[in-house]
Amino acid sequence: MVDILHRVGIVSSVDEVYKVLTTNKGLAAWWTTDTTGEGSTVGEVVKFVFSAGFFDMKVAELDPGKRVVWDVVDGPEEWIGTRVVWNLVQEDDYAIILFKHEGWREPVEFMHHCSTKWGSFLLSIKELVETGKGRAHPDDVKIDNWN
Amino acid sequence: MVDILHRVGIVSSVDEVYKVLTTNKGLAAWWTTDTTGEGSTVGEVVKFVFSAGFFDMKVAELDPGKRVVWDVVDGPEEWIGTRVVWNLVQEDDYAIILFKHEGWREPVEFMHHCSTKWGSFLLSIKELVETGKGRAHPDDVKIDNWN
Repeated sequence: MVDILHRVGIVSSVDEVYKVLTTNKGLAAWWTTDTTGEGSTVGEVVKFVFSAGFFDMKVAELDPGKRVVWDVVDGPEEWIGTRVVWNLVQEDDYAIILFKHEGWREPVEFMHHCSTKWGSFLLSIKELVETGKGRAHPDDVKIDNWN
Repeated sequence: MVDILHRVGIVSSVDEVYKVLTTNKGLAAWWTTDTTGEGSTVGEVVKFVFSAGFFDMKVAELDPGKRVVWDVVDGPEEWIGTRVVWNLVQEDDYAIILFKHEGWREPVEFMHHCSTKWGSFLLSIKELVETGKGRAHPDDVKIDNWN
């Protein structure tokens, strides 16, 4: 099993970052404008829709200011059964996100794409929290011919 | 052992992308302005210097328009002995880079940072080839408190 890993640091508090991971307003501002759900309750399924498909994420863990875990319950075949883990740590002026998308069965080409795309969405979170404006789909950074 | 994976697609030919991986002018325009060497000969060691440190890469394989492989021979402890692999494929108008930085011994926090940073430098290659201007260090995208 192989994982996608990322780290970004945001000039902010972990509480502000936690908020954009656990509210509809936040999620819709950095990932996709077509987000249904808040992500604020364990067991809730949040739907994220993009031009090319969708992801249904079941909130598996919530620890305010510290940790958010989502289980992928529907979406692309390669994603189903994988887990998205957000760990938050305050380091001086920076809220650090340690991100992991774990449980990929094979390092397929789509995983390479998703790795770069996650990195770019993490920078969208950074922009959103630091400047008030993220780059949610459909205004996301296009990284390749799969978008 | 764990790997960093990425995929970007550049509106270009694989030959143009191969060129920015195997010339001093290209490397210095997307990774770091302080680059010594061309990367155009198997066995050559190219030195890449950043504010925070350096990487010495020995060119291990060159297949024009298709593949470049670098072995890390000096630099941060976690990088020594790892390998950076660039595979290039033409898909219609896009030169696809399938990138792998393989052989990390542990998924340490620094690996999370390097994963995000590689993604951002791959987008610097895309910008360079598509627009003529990349974002090489020191003008690179700052992603966290480690830069």
